[in-house]
Amino acid sequence: MNTAEAIMGVHLTDEQRLDWLRLIRSDNVGPRTFRSLINHCGGARAALDALPGLARRGGASKPARICSREAAERELENSKNRGIALIALGEPDYPARLRMIDDAPPLLGVRGKASVLASHMIAVVGSRNASAAGTKFAERISRELGDAGFIIVSGLARGIDAAAHRSSLGSGTVAVLAGGHDHIYPAEHVPLLEQILPAGAAVTEMPLGWEPRGRDFPRRNRLISGLTIGVVIVEAARRSGSLITARMANEQGREVFAVPGSPLDPRAEGTNGLLKQGATLVTEGSDVLAVIRPILGQHIEQPAEEPDGDPPRLTEPDSSERARIVNLLGPAPVSIDDLVRLSQSSPAVVRTVLLELEIAGRLERHGGGLVSLV
Amino acid sequence: MNTAEAIMGVHLTDEQRLDWLRLIRSDNVGPRTFRSLINHCGGARAALDALPGLARRGGASKPARICSREAAERELENSKNRGIALIALGEPDYPARLRMIDDAPPLLGVRGKASVLASHMIAVVGSRNASAAGTKFAERISRELGDAGFIIVSGLARGIDAAAHRSSLGSGTVAVLAGGHDHIYPAEHVPLLEQILPAGAAVTEMPLGWEPRGRDFPRRNRLISGLTIGVVIVEAARRSGSLITARMANEQGREVFAVPGSPLDPRAEGTNGLLKQGATLVTEGSDVLAVIRPILGQHIEQPAEEPDGDPPRLTEPDSSERARIVNLLGPAPVSIDDLVRLSQSSPAVVRTVLLELEIAGRLERHGGGLVSLV
Repeated sequence: MNTAEAIMGVHLTDEQRLDWLRLIRSDNVGPRTFRSLINHCGGARAALDALPGLARRGGASKPARICSREAAERELENSKNRGIALIALGEPDYPARLRMIDDAPPLLGVRGKASVLASHMIAVVGSRNASAAGTKFAERISRELGDAGFIIVSGLARGIDAAAHRSSLGSGTVAVLAGGHDHIYPAEHVPLLEQILPAGAAVTEMPLGWEPRGRDFPRRNRLISGLTIGVVIVEAARRSGSLITARMANEQGREVFAVPGSPLDPRAEGTNGLLKQGATLVTEGSDVLAVIRPILGQHIEQPAEEPDGDPPRLTEPDSSERARIVNLLGPAPVSIDDLVRLSQSSPAVVRTVLLELEIAGRLERHGGGLVSLV
Repeated sequence: MNTAEAIMGVHLTDEQRLDWLRLIRSDNVGPRTFRSLINHCGGARAALDALPGLARRGGASKPARICSREAAERELENSKNRGIALIALGEPDYPARLRMIDDAPPLLGVRGKASVLASHMIAVVGSRNASAAGTKFAERISRELGDAGFIIVSGLARGIDAAAHRSSLGSGTVAVLAGGHDHIYPAEHVPLLEQILPAGAAVTEMPLGWEPRGRDFPRRNRLISGLTIGVVIVEAARRSGSLITARMANEQGREVFAVPGSPLDPRAEGTNGLLKQGATLVTEGSDVLAVIRPILGQHIEQPAEEPDGDPPRLTEPDSSERARIVNLLGPAPVSIDDLVRLSQSSPAVVRTVLLELEIAGRLERHGGGLVSLV
């Protein structure tokens, strides 16, 4: 099954799910690389078979670790025992809006009431170090939006996030985790999470056993925005994680709402800044609903997918062509378009070489189609 | 001299200034009626002569009081003794932007350093019942804008207004009064006003001896916005005077800036509301300057003036025509366009009848060209 088929909404077989899991849990394979591999090789099984060759041709210093069948079976088994469903991109239960982001997780680990993910969702996020007024406001707007039928998505953090979850326990709320389902951060919110699950859910793309590190939180934030129609930023200092969520939302074409605050309050610097950049000002739930209701019914656009040839295009560059393309790369980001132009190779060949470098752990992808050597 | 001549920037003779003063101080003559009268009669002297006839034809129950030559001479004399200049609309010292509003005062009483009125001005206004944060912010932004070369205009009220004046005493600030120069409100701000005058000014359209009543403050607010390129609203509750100033600014085509605040702070309800309606969000002086600097150099547009025929058009309706037009009027506001259409009279005739009713104290003018009988 390739992603184009998956997006049509069919279920994976157990064997396919196992292959998907092995592929996404292998070294140097993130959501984007996963998609490229599936497109390049025609399916997860073929991609797993191709990994060693790709890594070797990409110049890997040591063979890239491939997740073993046993490890994947163990994760599936442990997940099942803990009541975690691993929903694949394109399966009917996969959240419709999340599917549209270009780095959507191939497998989403869902605990709790998975059916809430079929509802319309709005994120309410903000500072951990929240003021009493900010906390109160987060409670109020989450209750208003929950009462209006929306599921409240947040990050289970202290402060605003916790307030958002707490006041939407009854209407339904989704906690997006930065680590595995067995590594809840902060640990003091384990009881809150248990309160969330009866009418809501916890979701993560990380495997069981994964303890979240600093860089996992910004990565997680793209899922918070990706699940939703829009994000409400309640309080945010300058350079805070909530602003990353707002930026992700913008990049994903989601609505950004910000709550104003006094210019003398450092916790409002981020939100006032968002308002200056064009975020919608929110002082009550109806401000959000007025923007969101008209777009609720709109058809959710399919992501721009590379055309999926069948049989897959196995465009193999020869070694001199590969060397020419690698030679054009360095630590400074360059655009893939420039690479194609300067190498005089076909786009398909350039993509293949980049994929090899990626699997070899030698390529970094930046925003805007830019790449550099690690 | 008609208004078209006045706008060309020539000085009135002493005799003309006396006539202007008598006309604007007569009953039922406000700034708009003053303009209509000058246009209709060709000059202030002719208008004074025409008043009794207009009032009679308009159906006045008693003769309208006309300001006597002696009273006007006394006001001019008293003003002079107190260092108050009465600057006429169109004279070179009349503030350039104020001249452009359609109810600009024919005579502006100016005390202090009149030359500041030639500078670019920005209003900083807000609640009397200001918070410490609001007061501090008003001080900060007034200082920043003052340092950037702008004169700060405000209303001498307690709270935000006083903070705005105080922090721009050195760079120059203008207090716009709702009463006469000898009736400062609140009285406790008389010492503040004395501090303002060396590098700033106090202005009013009201005569000496006029004690400000409630309705004089909204009327005054149009001068605060009218003098300026834009108004900064620092804190404002719902339905506050500062929101009237913002509305006036909008109607006059001036920029509206608002300072955000917490949705839980009632003193931010007005400003947050303005932001929702499209006001520019301000957290520092540079936010104001970024909007204002590009329009500073722009040519200030002349107001839409009725064509000023010479000799003036003395379009006299006959009594049946007059009765037909008056008959179309009632307590519910109707548009002048509808009156013209329904009466089948010429626009000039309709205008004349309305002017007669106005002088007779029987007409009320509303926004958007609507009129009703009192």
